[in-house]
Amino acid sequence: MNNNADAPVAVIGLGLMGQALARTFLEAGHPTTVWNRTAGKADQLVAEGARLAPTVGNAIQAGTLTILCVTDYQVVHELLGASDVELGGTTLVNLTSGDSAQAREAARWAEQRGARYLDGAIMAIPPSIGTPDGVILHSGPQAVFEAHESTLGALGTVTYLGADYGLASLYDVAGLAMMWSVLNAWLQGTALLRTAGVDATTYAPFARRLAVEVAEWLPGYAEQIDNGSFPAEVSALETDVRAMTHLIEESEAVGVNAELPKLIKAMADRAIAAGHGGEQYPVLIEEFSKPRVG
Amino acid sequence: MNNNADAPVAVIGLGLMGQALARTFLEAGHPTTVWNRTAGKADQLVAEGARLAPTVGNAIQAGTLTILCVTDYQVVHELLGASDVELGGTTLVNLTSGDSAQAREAARWAEQRGARYLDGAIMAIPPSIGTPDGVILHSGPQAVFEAHESTLGALGTVTYLGADYGLASLYDVAGLAMMWSVLNAWLQGTALLRTAGVDATTYAPFARRLAVEVAEWLPGYAEQIDNGSFPAEVSALETDVRAMTHLIEESEAVGVNAELPKLIKAMADRAIAAGHGGEQYPVLIEEFSKPRVG
Repeated sequence: MNNNADAPVAVIGLGLMGQALARTFLEAGHPTTVWNRTAGKADQLVAEGARLAPTVGNAIQAGTLTILCVTDYQVVHELLGASDVELGGTTLVNLTSGDSAQAREAARWAEQRGARYLDGAIMAIPPSIGTPDGVILHSGPQAVFEAHESTLGALGTVTYLGADYGLASLYDVAGLAMMWSVLNAWLQGTALLRTAGVDATTYAPFARRLAVEVAEWLPGYAEQIDNGSFPAEVSALETDVRAMTHLIEESEAVGVNAELPKLIKAMADRAIAAGHGGEQYPVLIEEFSKPRVG
Repeated sequence: MNNNADAPVAVIGLGLMGQALARTFLEAGHPTTVWNRTAGKADQLVAEGARLAPTVGNAIQAGTLTILCVTDYQVVHELLGASDVELGGTTLVNLTSGDSAQAREAARWAEQRGARYLDGAIMAIPPSIGTPDGVILHSGPQAVFEAHESTLGALGTVTYLGADYGLASLYDVAGLAMMWSVLNAWLQGTALLRTAGVDATTYAPFARRLAVEVAEWLPGYAEQIDNGSFPAEVSALETDVRAMTHLIEESEAVGVNAELPKLIKAMADRAIAAGHGGEQYPVLIEEFSKPRVG
Protein backbone atom coordinates (compact mmCIF):
# COMPACT_ATOMS: atom_id res chain seq x y z
CA MET A 1 0.00 0.00 0.00
CA ASN A 2 2.95 2.29 0.48
CA ASN A 3 4.49 1.93 -2.93
CA ASN A 4 2.43 4.26 -4.99
CA ALA A 5 2.26 7.95 -5.74
CA ASP A 6 -0.51 8.46 -3.17
CA ALA A 7 1.74 7.42 -0.27
CA PRO A 8 2.17 10.37 2.07
CA VAL A 9 5.79 11.17 2.89
CA ALA A 10 7.62 13.49 5.24
CA VAL A 11 10.95 15.23 4.76
CA ILE A 12 12.81 16.51 7.80
CA GLY A 13 15.62 18.93 7.09
CA LEU A 14 15.29 21.50 4.32
CA GLY A 15 18.78 22.34 3.26
CA LEU A 16 19.36 22.41 -0.50
CA MET A 17 19.22 18.62 -0.62
CA GLY A 18 16.18 18.28 1.63
CA GLN A 19 14.31 20.87 -0.44
CA ALA A 20 15.16 18.95 -3.62
CA LEU A 21 13.90 15.71 -2.07
CA ALA A 22 10.63 17.28 -0.87
CA ARG A 23 10.04 19.05 -4.18
CA THR A 24 10.62 15.82 -6.12
CA PHE A 25 8.09 13.97 -3.94
CA LEU A 26 5.59 16.77 -4.51
CA GLU A 27 6.12 16.68 -8.25
CA ALA A 28 5.60 12.89 -8.21
CA GLY A 29 2.23 13.44 -6.55
CA HIS A 30 3.05 12.38 -2.99
CA PRO A 31 1.29 14.27 -0.20
CA THR A 32 4.41 15.75 1.35
CA THR A 33 4.88 17.06 4.88
CA VAL A 34 8.03 18.98 5.70
CA TRP A 35 9.73 20.23 8.81
CA ASN A 36 12.82 22.35 9.34
CA ARG A 37 14.33 23.92 12.42
CA THR A 38 14.11 27.27 10.65
CA ALA A 39 10.54 27.10 9.40
CA GLY A 40 11.07 29.84 6.81
CA LYS A 41 12.99 27.43 4.61
CA ALA A 42 9.67 25.66 3.99
CA ASP A 43 7.90 28.71 2.53
CA GLN A 44 8.55 27.96 -1.11
CA LEU A 45 7.70 24.28 -0.69
CA VAL A 46 4.45 25.18 1.07
CA ALA A 47 3.62 27.46 -1.85
CA GLU A 48 4.19 24.44 -4.09
CA GLY A 49 1.82 22.27 -2.08
CA ALA A 50 3.77 20.89 0.86
CA ARG A 51 2.33 20.88 4.37
CA LEU A 52 4.53 22.37 7.08
CA ALA A 53 4.39 20.28 10.24
CA PRO A 54 4.51 22.16 13.55
CA THR A 55 6.85 19.59 15.14
CA VAL A 56 9.13 16.74 14.13
CA GLY A 57 6.79 14.32 15.87
CA ASN A 58 3.85 15.61 13.86
CA ALA A 59 5.78 15.32 10.60
CA ILE A 60 6.79 11.73 11.30
CA GLN A 61 3.17 10.74 12.00
CA ALA A 62 2.08 12.27 8.69
CA GLY A 63 4.09 10.06 6.36
CA THR A 64 4.20 6.38 5.54
CA LEU A 65 7.89 7.05 5.46
CA THR A 66 10.02 9.90 6.75
CA ILE A 67 13.19 11.06 5.05
CA LEU A 68 15.79 12.53 7.39
CA CYS A 69 18.29 14.86 5.72
CA VAL A 70 19.92 16.98 8.39
CA THR A 71 23.40 18.21 9.24
CA ASP A 72 24.74 15.17 11.06
CA TYR A 73 23.76 12.22 13.24
CA GLN A 74 23.86 14.29 16.41
CA VAL A 75 21.02 16.37 15.00
CA VAL A 76 19.17 13.18 14.08
CA HIS A 77 19.33 12.02 17.68
CA GLU A 78 18.34 15.45 19.04
CA LEU A 79 15.31 15.68 16.76
CA LEU A 80 14.07 12.12 17.18
CA GLY A 81 14.74 12.13 20.91
CA ALA A 82 12.29 14.98 21.56
CA SER A 83 9.56 14.10 24.04
CA ASP A 84 6.68 14.37 21.56
CA VAL A 85 8.21 12.03 18.99
CA GLU A 86 6.53 8.63 18.78
CA LEU A 87 8.53 6.29 16.54
CA GLY A 88 6.47 3.12 17.00
CA GLY A 89 5.30 1.81 13.62
CA THR A 90 7.04 4.51 11.62
CA THR A 91 9.56 4.07 8.81
CA LEU A 92 12.67 6.24 8.83
CA VAL A 93 14.98 6.62 5.85
CA ASN A 94 18.03 8.45 7.12
CA LEU A 95 19.92 10.15 4.29
CA THR A 96 22.00 12.27 6.67
CA SER A 97 25.76 12.08 6.01
CA GLY A 98 27.67 10.08 8.56
CA ASP A 99 29.87 7.06 8.98
CA SER A 100 28.95 3.39 9.10
CA ALA A 101 29.15 3.17 12.90
CA GLN A 102 26.77 6.11 13.27
CA ALA A 103 24.34 4.45 10.86
CA ARG A 104 24.38 1.18 12.78
CA GLU A 105 23.93 2.97 16.09
CA ALA A 106 21.06 5.12 14.80
CA ALA A 107 19.36 2.01 13.43
CA ARG A 108 19.65 0.19 16.77
CA TRP A 109 18.38 3.25 18.61
CA ALA A 110 15.39 3.75 16.29
CA GLU A 111 14.43 0.08 16.18
CA GLN A 112 14.47 -0.10 19.96
CA ARG A 113 11.78 2.56 19.80
CA GLY A 114 9.69 0.57 17.35
CA ALA A 115 10.71 2.23 14.08
CA ARG A 116 11.66 0.54 10.86
CA TYR A 117 14.92 2.03 9.67
CA LEU A 118 16.94 2.31 6.48
CA ASP A 119 20.20 4.16 6.19
CA GLY A 120 21.01 5.87 2.93
CA ALA A 121 23.62 7.92 1.15
CA ILE A 122 22.98 10.37 -1.64
CA MET A 123 25.63 10.19 -4.35
CA ALA A 124 24.29 13.16 -6.24
CA ILE A 125 23.90 16.90 -6.17
CA PRO A 126 20.49 18.48 -5.46
CA PRO A 127 19.66 19.26 -9.12
CA SER A 128 20.03 15.55 -9.97
CA ILE A 129 17.37 14.44 -7.50
CA GLY A 130 14.39 13.08 -9.42
CA THR A 131 16.55 12.15 -12.42
CA PRO A 132 18.45 8.93 -13.20
CA ASP A 133 21.62 10.71 -12.01
CA GLY A 134 20.08 11.01 -8.56
CA VAL A 135 21.80 7.92 -7.21
CA ILE A 136 20.78 7.04 -3.65
CA LEU A 137 22.19 4.01 -1.85
CA HIS A 138 20.22 2.20 0.86
CA SER A 139 21.10 -0.40 3.45
CA GLY A 140 19.09 -2.09 6.18
CA PRO A 141 16.31 -4.70 6.18
CA GLN A 142 15.52 -5.76 2.63
CA ALA A 143 11.79 -6.01 3.37
CA VAL A 144 11.69 -2.39 4.48
CA PHE A 145 13.47 -1.27 1.34
CA GLU A 146 11.19 -3.30 -0.89
CA ALA A 147 8.05 -2.00 0.84
CA HIS A 148 9.07 1.57 -0.04
CA GLU A 149 11.18 1.05 -3.16
CA SER A 150 8.56 2.52 -5.46
CA THR A 151 8.11 5.62 -3.30
CA LEU A 152 11.87 6.08 -2.90
CA GLY A 153 12.26 5.52 -6.64
CA ALA A 154 10.69 8.91 -7.29
CA LEU A 155 13.92 10.43 -6.00
CA GLY A 156 16.20 8.95 -8.65
CA THR A 157 18.14 5.73 -9.07
CA VAL A 158 17.71 3.90 -5.79
CA THR A 159 19.93 0.95 -4.95
CA TYR A 160 19.76 -1.61 -2.16
CA LEU A 161 23.16 -2.74 -0.88
CA GLY A 162 22.45 -5.19 1.92
CA ALA A 163 21.23 -5.68 5.46
CA ASP A 164 24.20 -4.07 7.24
CA TYR A 165 23.05 -0.52 8.00
CA GLY A 166 26.63 0.72 7.53
CA LEU A 167 26.90 -0.28 3.87
CA ALA A 168 25.40 2.89 2.40
CA SER A 169 27.96 5.02 4.20
CA LEU A 170 30.84 2.72 3.26
CA TYR A 171 29.91 2.56 -0.44
CA ASP A 172 29.40 6.31 -0.40
CA VAL A 173 32.88 7.17 0.84
CA ALA A 174 34.43 4.43 -1.29
CA GLY A 175 32.80 6.03 -4.32
CA LEU A 176 34.04 9.44 -3.29
CA ALA A 177 37.58 8.08 -2.99
CA MET A 178 37.29 6.86 -6.57
CA MET A 179 35.88 10.15 -7.77
CA TRP A 180 38.60 12.29 -6.27
CA SER A 181 41.31 9.84 -7.25
CA VAL A 182 40.34 9.89 -10.92
CA LEU A 183 40.13 13.67 -10.80
CA ASN A 184 43.48 14.00 -9.02
CA ALA A 185 45.24 11.61 -11.40
CA TRP A 186 43.83 13.60 -14.28
CA LEU A 187 45.02 16.86 -12.68
CA GLN A 188 48.47 15.36 -12.11
CA GLY A 189 48.66 14.37 -15.79
CA THR A 190 47.24 17.69 -16.94
CA ALA A 191 49.84 19.55 -14.87
CA LEU A 192 52.61 17.40 -16.39
CA LEU A 193 51.40 17.90 -19.95
CA ARG A 194 50.86 21.63 -19.55
CA THR A 195 54.61 22.00 -18.93
CA ALA A 196 54.98 20.97 -22.59
CA GLY A 197 52.27 23.35 -23.73
CA VAL A 198 49.58 20.67 -24.11
CA ASP A 199 46.07 21.99 -23.38
CA ALA A 200 43.91 20.30 -20.76
CA THR A 201 41.30 19.56 -23.43
CA THR A 202 43.94 17.89 -25.60
CA TYR A 203 45.04 15.62 -22.77
CA ALA A 204 41.60 14.84 -21.29
CA PRO A 205 40.50 12.18 -23.83
CA PHE A 206 43.72 10.27 -23.19
CA ALA A 207 43.13 10.37 -19.42
CA ARG A 208 39.51 9.35 -19.90
CA ARG A 209 40.46 6.35 -22.03
CA LEU A 210 43.08 5.23 -19.50
CA ALA A 211 40.65 5.49 -16.58
CA VAL A 212 38.05 3.45 -18.43
CA GLU A 213 40.59 0.81 -19.42
CA VAL A 214 41.91 0.39 -15.91
CA ALA A 215 38.37 0.30 -14.51
CA GLU A 216 37.78 -2.78 -16.63
CA TRP A 217 40.58 -4.60 -14.81
CA LEU A 218 38.94 -4.26 -11.40
CA PRO A 219 36.62 -7.28 -11.43
CA GLY A 220 39.51 -9.56 -12.41
CA TYR A 221 41.87 -8.04 -9.88
CA ALA A 222 39.14 -8.40 -7.24
CA GLU A 223 39.26 -12.16 -7.72
CA GLN A 224 42.90 -12.11 -6.68
CA ILE A 225 41.92 -10.35 -3.46
CA ASP A 226 39.07 -12.75 -2.67
CA ASN A 227 41.39 -15.68 -3.43
CA GLY A 228 44.18 -14.17 -1.34
CA SER A 229 46.61 -15.03 -4.13
CA PHE A 230 48.44 -12.46 -6.22
CA PRO A 231 50.48 -14.10 -8.98
CA ALA A 232 52.28 -11.55 -11.19
CA GLU A 233 50.34 -12.37 -14.34
CA VAL A 234 50.74 -8.89 -15.80
CA SER A 235 53.48 -7.22 -13.79
CA ALA A 236 55.31 -7.64 -10.52
CA LEU A 237 55.27 -4.89 -7.91
CA GLU A 238 59.06 -4.55 -7.98
CA THR A 239 58.80 -3.74 -11.71
CA ASP A 240 55.98 -1.27 -11.07
CA VAL A 241 58.03 0.73 -8.58
CA ARG A 242 60.67 1.49 -11.19
CA ALA A 243 57.97 3.19 -13.24
CA MET A 244 56.72 4.94 -10.09
CA THR A 245 60.20 6.36 -9.67
CA HIS A 246 59.99 7.70 -13.23
CA LEU A 247 56.68 9.36 -12.38
CA ILE A 248 58.18 11.05 -9.33
CA GLU A 249 61.33 12.13 -11.14
CA GLU A 250 59.39 13.49 -14.10
CA SER A 251 57.03 15.42 -11.82
CA GLU A 252 59.93 16.93 -9.90
CA ALA A 253 61.94 17.63 -13.05
CA VAL A 254 59.17 19.68 -14.66
CA GLY A 255 58.27 21.35 -11.36
CA VAL A 256 54.81 19.96 -10.65
CA ASN A 257 53.51 18.61 -7.36
CA ALA A 258 54.90 15.15 -6.63
CA GLU A 259 52.92 14.23 -3.50
CA LEU A 260 50.49 11.91 -5.24
CA PRO A 261 53.29 10.05 -7.09
CA LYS A 262 55.22 9.77 -3.82
CA LEU A 263 52.21 8.35 -1.97
CA ILE A 264 51.71 5.80 -4.77
CA LYS A 265 55.32 4.67 -4.45
CA ALA A 266 55.34 4.72 -0.64
CA MET A 267 52.42 2.28 -0.52
CA ALA A 268 54.14 -0.03 -3.02
CA ASP A 269 57.48 0.25 -1.22
CA ARG A 270 55.88 -0.92 2.01
CA ALA A 271 54.29 -3.92 0.29
CA ILE A 272 57.68 -4.81 -1.18
CA ALA A 273 59.32 -4.40 2.24
CA ALA A 274 56.67 -6.82 3.53
CA GLY A 275 57.92 -9.36 1.00
CA HIS A 276 55.44 -8.90 -1.85
CA GLY A 277 57.77 -7.54 -4.56
CA GLY A 278 57.21 -10.53 -6.80
CA GLU A 279 53.42 -10.34 -6.58
CA GLN A 280 50.85 -8.32 -8.46
CA TYR A 281 49.44 -4.91 -7.61
CA PRO A 282 46.26 -6.01 -5.77
CA VAL A 283 48.48 -7.43 -3.02
CA LEU A 284 48.54 -3.81 -1.83
CA ILE A 285 45.15 -4.51 -0.28
CA GLU A 286 47.15 -5.58 2.75
CA GLU A 287 48.62 -2.08 3.09
CA PHE A 288 45.30 -0.36 2.45
CA SER A 289 43.57 -2.59 5.01
CA LYS A 290 45.57 -1.47 8.02
CA PRO A 291 46.17 1.89 9.65
CA ARG A 292 49.48 3.52 8.82
CA VAL A 293 51.72 3.03 11.82
CA GLY A 294 54.66 5.34 12.45
CA MET B 1 59.84 2.79 -49.17
CA ASN B 2 60.29 2.08 -45.48
CA ASN B 3 56.69 1.43 -44.62
CA ASN B 4 56.30 -2.14 -45.71
CA ALA B 5 57.02 -5.56 -44.29
CA ASP B 6 60.27 -5.80 -46.26
CA ALA B 7 61.82 -2.87 -44.41
CA PRO B 8 64.84 -4.10 -42.46
CA VAL B 9 64.81 -3.11 -38.81
CA ALA B 10 67.21 -3.31 -35.89
CA VAL B 11 66.45 -3.76 -32.20
CA ILE B 12 69.09 -2.81 -29.67
CA GLY B 13 68.52 -4.13 -26.16
CA LEU B 14 67.05 -7.58 -25.63
CA GLY B 15 65.42 -7.50 -22.24
CA LEU B 16 61.95 -9.04 -22.11
CA MET B 17 60.52 -6.02 -23.92
CA GLY B 18 63.27 -5.83 -26.55
CA GLN B 19 62.86 -9.52 -27.26
CA ALA B 20 59.12 -9.07 -27.71
CA LEU B 21 59.70 -6.16 -30.11
CA ALA B 22 62.25 -8.09 -32.18
CA ARG B 23 60.12 -11.23 -32.29
CA THR B 24 57.09 -9.24 -33.40
CA PHE B 25 59.08 -7.64 -36.24
CA LEU B 26 60.31 -11.08 -37.30
CA GLU B 27 56.79 -12.46 -37.27
CA ALA B 28 55.62 -9.53 -39.40
CA GLY B 29 58.24 -10.45 -41.98
CA HIS B 30 60.80 -7.69 -41.35
CA PRO B 31 64.45 -8.62 -41.78
CA THR B 32 65.49 -8.03 -38.17
CA THR B 33 68.94 -7.38 -36.80
CA VAL B 34 69.46 -7.48 -33.05
CA TRP B 35 72.20 -6.52 -30.65
CA ASN B 36 72.55 -6.92 -26.91
CA ARG B 37 75.42 -6.30 -24.54
CA THR B 38 75.12 -9.93 -23.42
CA ALA B 39 74.95 -11.62 -26.81
CA GLY B 40 73.49 -14.84 -25.42
CA LYS B 41 70.12 -13.15 -25.01
CA ALA B 42 69.88 -13.14 -28.81
CA ASP B 43 70.17 -16.90 -29.19
CA GLN B 44 66.48 -17.69 -29.32
CA LEU B 45 65.77 -14.78 -31.66
CA VAL B 46 68.59 -15.88 -33.98
CA ALA B 47 67.05 -19.36 -34.03
CA GLU B 48 63.82 -17.67 -35.10
CA GLY B 49 65.51 -15.86 -37.95
CA ALA B 50 67.06 -12.69 -36.51
CA ARG B 51 70.59 -11.65 -37.42
CA LEU B 52 72.91 -10.89 -34.50
CA ALA B 53 75.01 -7.82 -35.23
CA PRO B 54 78.59 -7.84 -33.94
CA THR B 55 78.43 -4.20 -32.83
CA VAL B 56 75.85 -1.48 -32.19
CA GLY B 57 77.22 0.43 -35.16
CA ASN B 58 76.71 -2.56 -37.39
CA ALA B 59 73.15 -3.09 -36.14
CA ILE B 60 72.21 0.53 -36.77
CA GLN B 61 73.51 0.38 -40.34
CA ALA B 62 71.42 -2.74 -41.00
CA GLY B 63 67.98 -1.25 -40.42
CA THR B 64 65.92 1.44 -42.09
CA LEU B 65 65.02 2.17 -38.48
CA THR B 66 66.57 1.16 -35.19
CA ILE B 67 64.58 0.58 -32.03
CA LEU B 68 66.46 1.34 -28.82
CA CYS B 69 65.07 -0.41 -25.74
CA VAL B 70 67.74 -0.40 -23.06
CA THR B 71 67.95 0.19 -19.32
CA ASP B 72 68.10 3.97 -19.31
CA TYR B 73 69.25 7.03 -21.25
CA GLN B 74 72.79 6.78 -19.91
CA VAL B 75 73.10 3.43 -21.64
CA VAL B 76 71.67 4.98 -24.82
CA HIS B 77 74.42 7.59 -24.80
CA GLU B 78 77.12 5.03 -24.02
CA LEU B 79 76.05 2.76 -26.85
CA LEU B 80 75.48 5.44 -29.48
CA GLY B 81 78.65 7.31 -28.48
CA ALA B 82 80.93 4.39 -29.35
CA SER B 83 83.60 5.25 -31.91
CA ASP B 84 82.31 2.91 -34.61
CA VAL B 85 78.75 4.22 -34.56
CA GLU B 86 77.83 6.33 -37.59
CA LEU B 87 74.43 7.96 -37.09
CA GLY B 88 74.28 10.04 -40.27
CA GLY B 89 71.15 9.19 -42.25
CA THR B 90 69.83 6.70 -39.72
CA THR B 91 66.46 6.70 -37.97
CA LEU B 92 66.36 6.02 -34.23
CA VAL B 93 63.18 5.22 -32.32
CA ASN B 94 64.12 5.36 -28.67
CA LEU B 95 61.66 3.38 -26.53
CA THR B 96 63.94 3.45 -23.49
CA SER B 97 62.20 4.64 -20.31
CA GLY B 98 63.21 8.10 -19.22
CA ASP B 99 61.89 11.55 -18.57
CA SER B 100 60.94 14.29 -20.99
CA ALA B 101 64.18 16.23 -20.51
CA GLN B 102 66.25 13.14 -21.28
CA ALA B 103 64.20 12.56 -24.42
CA ARG B 104 64.72 16.11 -25.65
CA GLU B 105 68.44 15.96 -24.91
CA ALA B 106 68.88 12.61 -26.65
CA ALA B 107 67.03 13.94 -29.68
CA ARG B 108 69.26 17.00 -29.87
CA TRP B 109 72.37 14.87 -29.46
CA ALA B 110 71.33 12.37 -32.14
CA GLU B 111 70.19 14.99 -34.64
CA GLN B 112 73.48 16.85 -34.27
CA ARG B 113 75.06 13.61 -35.50
CA GLY B 114 72.77 13.42 -38.50
CA ALA B 115 70.16 10.96 -37.23
CA ARG B 116 66.41 11.25 -37.45
CA TYR B 117 64.96 10.66 -34.01
CA LEU B 118 61.64 9.72 -32.43
CA ASP B 119 61.13 9.23 -28.75
CA GLY B 120 58.60 6.68 -27.63
CA ALA B 121 57.02 5.13 -24.57
CA ILE B 122 55.59 1.65 -24.35
CA MET B 123 52.35 1.54 -22.36
CA ALA B 124 52.10 -2.22 -22.44
CA ILE B 125 53.63 -5.41 -21.11
CA PRO B 126 55.80 -7.60 -23.38
CA PRO B 127 53.05 -10.17 -24.15
CA SER B 128 50.86 -7.36 -25.56
CA ILE B 129 53.42 -6.30 -28.16
CA GLY B 130 52.07 -7.09 -31.62
CA THR B 131 48.45 -6.89 -30.42
CA PRO B 132 46.07 -3.91 -30.24
CA ASP B 133 46.87 -3.71 -26.50
CA GLY B 134 50.49 -2.98 -27.39
CA VAL B 135 50.09 0.77 -27.08
CA ILE B 136 53.24 2.70 -28.00
CA LEU B 137 53.35 6.49 -27.90
CA HIS B 138 55.67 8.49 -30.17
CA SER B 139 56.80 12.07 -30.27
CA GLY B 140 59.19 13.98 -32.50
CA PRO B 141 59.06 15.15 -36.15
CA GLN B 142 55.75 14.14 -37.69
CA ALA B 143 57.38 13.36 -41.04
CA VAL B 144 59.70 10.84 -39.41
CA PHE B 145 56.78 9.14 -37.66
CA GLU B 146 54.74 9.01 -40.83
CA ALA B 147 57.62 7.59 -42.85
CA HIS B 148 57.83 4.66 -40.46
CA GLU B 149 54.27 4.42 -39.15
CA SER B 150 53.49 1.26 -41.05
CA THR B 151 56.65 -0.49 -39.85
CA LEU B 152 56.09 0.64 -36.26
CA GLY B 153 52.46 -0.41 -36.59
CA ALA B 154 53.53 -4.05 -36.53
CA LEU B 155 54.30 -3.58 -32.84
CA GLY B 156 50.76 -2.72 -31.77
CA THR B 157 48.69 0.44 -31.50
CA VAL B 158 51.07 3.25 -32.36
CA THR B 159 50.14 6.83 -31.60
CA TYR B 160 51.75 10.11 -32.58
CA LEU B 161 51.52 12.82 -29.92
CA GLY B 162 53.34 15.83 -31.36
CA ALA B 163 56.65 17.36 -32.28
CA ASP B 164 57.96 17.89 -28.74
CA TYR B 165 60.25 14.92 -28.10
CA GLY B 166 59.26 14.96 -24.42
CA LEU B 167 55.58 14.23 -25.01
CA ALA B 168 55.82 10.45 -25.09
CA SER B 169 57.45 10.40 -21.68
CA LEU B 170 54.97 12.90 -20.24
CA TYR B 171 51.91 11.07 -21.54
CA ASP B 172 53.41 7.82 -20.31
CA VAL B 173 53.84 8.90 -16.71
CA ALA B 174 50.52 10.74 -16.77
CA GLY B 175 48.87 7.51 -17.84
CA LEU B 176 50.65 5.62 -15.09
CA ALA B 177 49.42 8.13 -12.53
CA MET B 178 45.88 7.44 -13.71
CA MET B 179 46.40 3.69 -13.62
CA TRP B 180 47.73 3.58 -10.09
CA SER B 181 45.20 6.13 -8.88
CA VAL B 182 42.23 4.11 -10.11
CA LEU B 183 43.75 0.98 -8.59
CA ASN B 184 44.49 2.69 -5.28
CA ALA B 185 41.03 4.22 -5.02
CA TRP B 186 39.56 0.79 -5.70
CA LEU B 187 41.82 -0.73 -3.04
CA GLN B 188 40.79 1.99 -0.57
CA GLY B 189 37.13 1.23 -1.23
CA THR B 190 37.70 -2.51 -1.14
CA ALA B 191 39.45 -2.19 2.21
CA LEU B 192 36.55 -0.10 3.56
CA LEU B 193 33.90 -2.54 2.34
CA ARG B 194 35.75 -5.61 3.55
CA THR B 195 35.37 -4.30 7.10
CA ALA B 196 31.64 -4.96 6.60
CA GLY B 197 32.24 -8.38 5.11
CA VAL B 198 31.71 -7.31 1.50
CA ASP B 199 33.85 -9.31 -0.96
CA ALA B 200 36.18 -7.54 -3.35
CA THR B 201 34.31 -9.06 -6.29
CA THR B 202 31.02 -7.70 -4.92
CA TYR B 203 32.41 -4.19 -4.64
CA ALA B 204 34.42 -4.13 -7.90
CA PRO B 205 31.52 -3.47 -10.32
CA PHE B 206 30.49 -0.45 -8.23
CA ALA B 207 34.04 0.92 -8.32
CA ARG B 208 34.28 0.26 -12.05
CA ARG B 209 31.06 2.12 -12.76
CA LEU B 210 32.16 5.10 -10.66
CA ALA B 211 35.53 5.31 -12.40
CA VAL B 212 33.91 5.23 -15.82
CA GLU B 213 31.35 7.88 -14.83
CA VAL B 214 33.96 10.26 -13.47
CA ALA B 215 36.17 9.67 -16.52
CA GLU B 216 33.35 11.06 -18.64
CA TRP B 217 33.52 14.36 -16.75
CA LEU B 218 37.13 15.01 -17.70
CA PRO B 219 36.68 16.64 -21.12
CA GLY B 220 34.18 19.12 -19.66
CA TYR B 221 36.31 19.82 -16.62
CA ALA B 222 39.30 20.32 -18.93
CA GLU B 223 37.51 23.23 -20.54
CA GLN B 224 37.41 24.98 -17.16
CA ILE B 225 41.18 24.61 -16.93
CA ASP B 226 41.83 25.90 -20.44
CA ASN B 227 39.45 28.81 -19.77
CA GLY B 228 41.06 29.49 -16.40
CA SER B 229 37.57 29.83 -14.91
CA PHE B 230 36.11 27.44 -12.35
CA PRO B 231 32.48 28.30 -11.57
CA ALA B 232 30.93 25.86 -9.07
CA GLU B 233 28.37 24.44 -11.51
CA VAL B 234 28.20 21.08 -9.73
CA SER B 235 29.82 21.58 -6.35
CA ALA B 236 32.06 24.04 -4.55
CA LEU B 237 35.36 22.92 -3.10
CA GLU B 238 34.33 23.96 0.41
CA THR B 239 31.38 21.54 0.15
CA ASP B 240 33.64 18.78 -1.18
CA VAL B 241 35.99 18.98 1.79
CA ARG B 242 33.19 18.15 4.20
CA ALA B 243 32.73 14.87 2.36
CA MET B 244 36.51 14.40 2.35
CA THR B 245 36.41 14.66 6.12
CA HIS B 246 33.78 11.89 6.14
CA LEU B 247 36.07 9.73 4.03
CA ILE B 248 38.97 10.23 6.43
CA GLU B 249 36.84 9.67 9.52
CA GLU B 250 35.25 6.53 8.10
CA SER B 251 38.65 5.13 7.10
CA GLU B 252 40.06 5.78 10.55
CA ALA B 253 36.94 4.52 12.33
CA VAL B 254 37.04 1.14 10.60
CA GLY B 255 40.82 0.91 10.88
CA VAL B 256 41.93 1.13 7.27
CA ASN B 257 44.75 3.23 5.86
CA ALA B 258 43.78 6.90 5.63
CA GLU B 259 46.80 8.33 3.81
CA LEU B 260 45.10 8.60 0.42
CA PRO B 261 41.99 10.30 1.89
CA LYS B 262 44.26 12.68 3.82
CA LEU B 263 46.24 13.59 0.71
CA ILE B 264 43.00 14.26 -1.16
CA LYS B 265 41.84 16.63 1.57
CA ALA B 266 45.23 18.28 2.01
CA MET B 267 45.30 19.30 -1.65
CA ALA B 268 41.77 20.70 -1.42
CA ASP B 269 42.51 22.46 1.86
CA ARG B 270 45.42 24.29 0.27
CA ALA B 271 43.27 25.41 -2.65
CA ILE B 272 40.69 26.71 -0.20
CA ALA B 273 43.41 28.47 1.79
CA ALA B 274 44.44 30.10 -1.48
CA GLY B 275 40.92 31.50 -1.78
CA HIS B 276 39.27 28.97 -4.08
CA GLY B 277 36.68 27.47 -1.69
CA GLY B 278 33.76 28.74 -3.77
CA GLU B 279 35.13 27.33 -7.01
CA GLN B 280 34.90 23.91 -8.61
CA TYR B 281 37.28 20.98 -8.27
CA PRO B 282 39.42 21.56 -11.39
CA VAL B 283 40.74 24.75 -9.75
CA LEU B 284 43.06 22.33 -7.94
CA ILE B 285 45.17 22.38 -11.12
CA GLU B 286 46.91 25.33 -9.49
CA GLU B 287 48.04 23.13 -6.58
CA PHE B 288 49.03 20.25 -8.85
CA SER B 289 51.00 22.59 -11.10
CA LYS B 290 53.50 23.72 -8.51
CA PRO B 291 56.00 21.91 -6.30
CA ARG B 292 54.90 21.41 -2.72
CA VAL B 293 56.77 23.95 -0.65
CA GLY B 294 57.32 23.40 3.05
